[in-house]
Amino acid sequence: MQHFERILLTGAAGDLGTVLRKGLAPLAKTLRLNDREPIANPADNEEVVQCDLADMQAVFDMVADTDAIVHFGGASRERAWQDVLDSTIRGSYHIYEAARKHGVKRIIYASSIHAVGFHTTESVPDTRVAHRPDTLYGLSKCFTEDLASLYWDKYKVETVCLRICSCFTEPQDRRQLFSYMSYDDCVRLVEAALTAPRVGHSIIYGTSDNRGKVVSNVHATHIGYRPQDNTDAHFEKVWKAKPPLDREEAQAKYVGGWFCDLKHPDDPEYNPDPPA
Amino acid sequence: MQHFERILLTGAAGDLGTVLRKGLAPLAKTLRLNDREPIANPADNEEVVQCDLADMQAVFDMVADTDAIVHFGGASRERAWQDVLDSTIRGSYHIYEAARKHGVKRIIYASSIHAVGFHTTESVPDTRVAHRPDTLYGLSKCFTEDLASLYWDKYKVETVCLRICSCFTEPQDRRQLFSYMSYDDCVRLVEAALTAPRVGHSIIYGTSDNRGKVVSNVHATHIGYRPQDNTDAHFEKVWKAKPPLDREEAQAKYVGGWFCDLKHPDDPEYNPDPPA
Amino acid sequence: MQHFERILLTGAAGDLGTVLRKGLAPLAKTLRLNDREPIANPADNEEVVQCDLADMQAVFDMVADTDAIVHFGGASRERAWQDVLDSTIRGSYHIYEAARKHGVKRIIYASSIHAVGFHTTESVPDTRVAHRPDTLYGLSKCFTEDLASLYWDKYKVETVCLRICSCFTEPQDRRQLFSYMSYDDCVRLVEAALTAPRVGHSIIYGTSDNRGKVVSNVHATHIGYRPQDNTDAHFEKVWKAKPPLDREEAQAKYVGGWFCDLKHPDDPEYNPDPPA
Amino acid sequence: MQHFERILLTGAAGDLGTVLRKGLAPLAKTLRLNDREPIANPADNEEVVQCDLADMQAVFDMVADTDAIVHFGGASRERAWQDVLDSTIRGSYHIYEAARKHGVKRIIYASSIHAVGFHTTESVPDTRVAHRPDTLYGLSKCFTEDLASLYWDKYKVETVCLRICSCFTEPQDRRQLFSYMSYDDCVRLVEAALTAPRVGHSIIYGTSDNRGKVVSNVHATHIGYRPQDNTDAHFEKVWKAKPPLDREEAQAKYVGGWFCDLKHPDDPEYNPDPPA
Amino acid sequence: MQHFERILLTGAAGDLGTVLRKGLAPLAKTLRLNDREPIANPADNEEVVQCDLADMQAVFDMVADTDAIVHFGGASRERAWQDVLDSTIRGSYHIYEAARKHGVKRIIYASSIHAVGFHTTESVPDTRVAHRPDTLYGLSKCFTEDLASLYWDKYKVETVCLRICSCFTEPQDRRQLFSYMSYDDCVRLVEAALTAPRVGHSIIYGTSDNRGKVVSNVHATHIGYRPQDNTDAHFEKVWKAKPPLDREEAQAKYVGGWFCDLKHPDDPEYNPDPPA
Amino acid sequence: MQHFERILLTGAAGDLGTVLRKGLAPLAKTLRLNDREPIANPADNEEVVQCDLADMQAVFDMVADTDAIVHFGGASRERAWQDVLDSTIRGSYHIYEAARKHGVKRIIYASSIHAVGFHTTESVPDTRVAHRPDTLYGLSKCFTEDLASLYWDKYKVETVCLRICSCFTEPQDRRQLFSYMSYDDCVRLVEAALTAPRVGHSIIYGTSDNRGKVVSNVHATHIGYRPQDNTDAHFEKVWKAKPPLDREEAQAKYVGGWFCDLKHPDDPEYNPDPPA
Repeated sequence: MQHFERILLTGAAGDLGTVLRKGLAPLAKTLRLNDREPIANPADNEEVVQCDLADMQAVFDMVADTDAIVHFGGASRERAWQDVLDSTIRGSYHIYEAARKHGVKRIIYASSIHAVGFHTTESVPDTRVAHRPDTLYGLSKCFTEDLASLYWDKYKVETVCLRICSCFTEPQDRRQLFSYMSYDDCVRLVEAALTAPRVGHSIIYGTSDNRGKVVSNVHATHIGYRPQDNTDAHFEKVWKAKPPLDREEAQAKYVGGWFCDLKHPDDPEYNPDPPA
Repeated sequence: MQHFERILLTGAAGDLGTVLRKGLAPLAKTLRLNDREPIANPADNEEVVQCDLADMQAVFDMVADTDAIVHFGGASRERAWQDVLDSTIRGSYHIYEAARKHGVKRIIYASSIHAVGFHTTESVPDTRVAHRPDTLYGLSKCFTEDLASLYWDKYKVETVCLRICSCFTEPQDRRQLFSYMSYDDCVRLVEAALTAPRVGHSIIYGTSDNRGKVVSNVHATHIGYRPQDNTDAHFEKVWKAKPPLDREEAQAKYVGGWFCDLKHPDDPEYNPDPPA
Repeated sequence: MQHFERILLTGAAGDLGTVLRKGLAPLAKTLRLNDREPIANPADNEEVVQCDLADMQAVFDMVADTDAIVHFGGASRERAWQDVLDSTIRGSYHIYEAARKHGVKRIIYASSIHAVGFHTTESVPDTRVAHRPDTLYGLSKCFTEDLASLYWDKYKVETVCLRICSCFTEPQDRRQLFSYMSYDDCVRLVEAALTAPRVGHSIIYGTSDNRGKVVSNVHATHIGYRPQDNTDAHFEKVWKAKPPLDREEAQAKYVGGWFCDLKHPDDPEYNPDPPA
Repeated sequence: MQHFERILLTGAAGDLGTVLRKGLAPLAKTLRLNDREPIANPADNEEVVQCDLADMQAVFDMVADTDAIVHFGGASRERAWQDVLDSTIRGSYHIYEAARKHGVKRIIYASSIHAVGFHTTESVPDTRVAHRPDTLYGLSKCFTEDLASLYWDKYKVETVCLRICSCFTEPQDRRQLFSYMSYDDCVRLVEAALTAPRVGHSIIYGTSDNRGKVVSNVHATHIGYRPQDNTDAHFEKVWKAKPPLDREEAQAKYVGGWFCDLKHPDDPEYNPDPPA
Repeated sequence: MQHFERILLTGAAGDLGTVLRKGLAPLAKTLRLNDREPIANPADNEEVVQCDLADMQAVFDMVADTDAIVHFGGASRERAWQDVLDSTIRGSYHIYEAARKHGVKRIIYASSIHAVGFHTTESVPDTRVAHRPDTLYGLSKCFTEDLASLYWDKYKVETVCLRICSCFTEPQDRRQLFSYMSYDDCVRLVEAALTAPRVGHSIIYGTSDNRGKVVSNVHATHIGYRPQDNTDAHFEKVWKAKPPLDREEAQAKYVGGWFCDLKHPDDPEYNPDPPA
Repeated sequence: MQHFERILLTGAAGDLGTVLRKGLAPLAKTLRLNDREPIANPADNEEVVQCDLADMQAVFDMVADTDAIVHFGGASRERAWQDVLDSTIRGSYHIYEAARKHGVKRIIYASSIHAVGFHTTESVPDTRVAHRPDTLYGLSKCFTEDLASLYWDKYKVETVCLRICSCFTEPQDRRQLFSYMSYDDCVRLVEAALTAPRVGHSIIYGTSDNRGKVVSNVHATHIGYRPQDNTDAHFEKVWKAKPPLDREEAQAKYVGGWFCDLKHPDDPEYNPDPPA
């Protein structure tokens, strides 16, 4: 069912962006795709705008004539400060300012579990807990969540902040058995967030219907997200393939997992890759 | 399974009353039906008492020899103050006083979402939030909820207050896609409320298992209500037939919907009908 | 400091009304005094309107040309239902409707601890707990609190509900050592409620700064009430003169005290007087 | 899937112990079975240690070389003080001390609903409410829960406290329709508690997915327990066979049921059997 | 003012016991003093019962003919398990059973901050937080708090649990600048707890009115405790005499202070003395 | 009492910086003063480092050899985005990174009420409410609060975020009667925050002890702040000099006051000055 004339999708060349190009197609006449990387072979319903979110004027131009923004652009994991600053902090500001100026009414933002990563798993944080970012990446997600709060209270731009946990083709380690969100559920979540009658400034966690939920959407039912997938079929395989989690390791201890253990990007030992 | 000798059903000539006559039949030997309108052709298990709830003596007589009261009588939407006062405030007082005098142990009361209508949808109110009535109608529901509290604490008359959201044959607009309760679920809810071992003074929201719940029964699981229906099958049809909700309109903004926009009944522009 | 042109004071012939006539004099050019009993010898700054609050037209006329209403009228303790209905439920509705029609911006309402009387003393209820009225009197206070909520949310008439505990010349029994509010503190409370820049729909408990507080104003600091009195000087005298409280008696158990034990006014054993 | 080398199961000769011997077999190479009663015919994967938990040295020896402890030993219902003290308070202390000395990392403890039995059913207690034990039995469960807290905070021994409600072959009275946990769900619960990546000091209620839940696991989703059974098939039979619950009886009023009515074991009228 | 005939004071030979002998004298005709150590030279209003609280029969006899019990006996800091078990767990049980049998209505119990010692200082725990004992000593205080809960809910013996922080002649280190309670305030606290009209099962923290409160009595105002002392006069002296607290040391990090760092009494490195 | 060798004070040329130069002098051997403006005539205990906080290397050099940082630098009210970005977002990042690298253990940060400005006054927000920034200025304060959270959880740099309300020589309008903090109380607050034994990541509101508190420090008592001033002496003068606050104006409605009404700095009507 087409709800929109033109949805802008930022980060369209990324993994989730690619999933959403297909998943959101039925919702709008046109998808405007943005990335700083080139996007080849757009479909008939797609139009491509290649630009860096740090380029304010380019962002302003790009947002014109759109109904809604699905903002998945910006650094997708821990980066050096300057990258985080440019791609997420400055980039998100440009998106929101453009939305204000062009009267876009709703933004769906790819926030992250890493905005609250230092809460322990056994505390099962809900969508009302305080920010506890675990990385510069998480800090920049906190910034955009607060930016969204300002633009709702003051300028009436609505946002749903999706605190995405682990969205891949399949769960890759024991922690992801609990934090995983399938690509199909990601599409369901974005669609629900786009079409709920009113969201104001809302936050929701993005996982599938897995066993062992370490975050709670009990106050976010108004979004209408109903996950259909879970990690049951992957349990035994991942469990056998991967070493047990030590409960005192960040991987098990915090909802942010190993991001809580990442060294600072300026640290010589910094290594952004997941632990073996 | 018959749990009761004789259940009194007030408001029996109304839409929900008609549904409940059939739905509650298995629960009692006899249903005593009350309305101020005549009720034709009672079934073998039914007996009819026609009277106005504002008539204290008639209510006292009617309540005698009953085990339980399903109190769905009173003004069913916004009315002028005198009507609200007579039918709901005075009427409910007569019901509770009669229950106290005749030793009736439990009342199931058709309260309404409009007792808390001014809470915003994105706040997803639970059953412990403060009253925020949206109309004289909602105010009279608040009164009866508090009356029930008094009669439980002091006189040990139990009540389940059902904050019914939108109970019709099918969802009629975009808001009702979220707030709708089917007739069958209404029967399930009343049955659960009648048969739970202990309810004291309890409150529960009455909706089906719809996508996009804007109220929360997380503290009302002891009632044992399990909705079986939802609005999924109606989604596309209603979505296309009805205009989008503006998120700043009461219809989308408040759990009470357009009741929050209703003018006062004394206002020349007062129009109790739903917005087109 | 004069903040108002004309304040309407209902219940002006009662004990607290008499205290407030003097206490509020500096706040307005004129005090309009209302009671159903005659008020003799008004001062120069006073004007008298004798009428029953159940008389809608009289109330409408009386409210004209006032800036603020200090609404202390209505039944001052447990009464028969018809009295409660007429003096408090209908009377308060008339006051609020008149305020809406005449554009009065703020009402200070003499609610009561009996709106939440069935909370236990050791639970130390704050201003966000649910209503638990202990009498028809308390129930009518709940009604007016909810009425005030509606008139704020919908019509922007502000109210501070003062849940007055025990306001007399001096504490009269052991319970009042904890619940007592002096007349001077009552004036301070009403003045704070009238002059706080914004109150919306607020609730505050009315006691002096006694030892052993069984209610909490921790969420009502915005009213700016600072009690100056306490019951210390009365402790030994009252303690010796009065029998100990049994902790299972309503007098000690509930914040509503012996009102929780009062029989229903229709009960032959009903006796509205305090226990000996 | 084998997660453990050797799990110690205390209380292995009891009803639940017998269920768990079979249910936990796939999780470990060896099950070490303990009871003070003899256990005949151990399976190939089982080894038996018969000793009393009150015997500190025997417990210390028994815990050596185990990976995890499923601690279901101790008095299984109300007993005289000396029995409760020896079997549960002293016995549990011995288990935890042995775990500390031998470096066992996780204990699954059969706590009980009777640790919080005096909360009312309509309050639907969650896993964060205060202890309100209903018997010496419940008090000893509170003790072990707090002991587990100490051994987690200070010595990093993890525990999941299972507040088991009513675990039998089938529900035996009207209350158990709501509080029942099937044997299969009990196995599921213990398995989830054993295999969750991190539990720290966690509490979860043990019931099946029954209609009318009077306790809430909303903060315990991280354990990953998914009940598969419920009491639906037993409803009509039990309902007809058993008398209605009076809502003021402990059986209906408190989550601890008739334990709240049990006399003290020293009382001449003490009778530990369920009411007829 | 004499409120009681005969108050039993356990632990009467200890430091606080000695303070209370003098402080409580005005409250009762007779103080019955108990300790396992001899008490020389009782005053005219005092009678001495020397016995060990682990001696059930002696405790039963001792409690006869008393109105109230101020229970300060039992291990006063960390001890070996057997000592804790005998003096506090078994001893407290004997006190409560004796109170039940002899109809004593109220017990004031010297609980301790160490019942919740593992809460962090910056979380400022109130009286509703979960138990988090920091020692066997703290665990035994948790036990008695729960025992008191049972004896209130079931047998109507009231208790105020005083979670005493640091009660000495003067503050001895930097932490005690914040946790200190003067002897005079200790007497005020016990007197308030004895004379409040109803306490049911209540908990209150025992500190003076110091700067930098790390615990909150916001829900315990009904006890009527008003501390008159504080540590201001000691600040500079202690600050200079003692080394700064490292914020990661237990001394600064947890409300239980260095108890959180104590080794287990069975550990060869166990040293129950405060850090130098 | 000297607690520190060298405290770095940023924003030292501003109004509050000037107050703090004098107020903090007793706490450290040396005060290192930083501002981008020149600072003339440093005292003997002062050393001046003039640099822009946006200059990362200069900030790193400046932080060396300091014990603690009182970070009052950055934009002091609403500014254009680029100014906010450079002075507060980038500037604060430089301060925290420098603290991490140089091992500075504690930072006192001048956050602001504008980090939570859109909470209503009658909701009396405490220090645990969600961020609701009212300006780009407030948004940058939110950013630094979250940055501080990250640097505590991950790098053990402690921070007290002071949400300063209105700190001037005297209250200047009706709102400031409630939100005002005197210069002396500001010094008291910073001193308390510097010397509390442990703060982790803490938040506290900065006001004097005024009548009509619209924010709550009930969870921040561990800081040990005791305001000594209030606005009583200014009440009548300000009340008469300034027009009444309309309760629907941002000035009265929100804790952020007129900042909630400020246009965006890019808006042609933007005017950063307070309303007349």
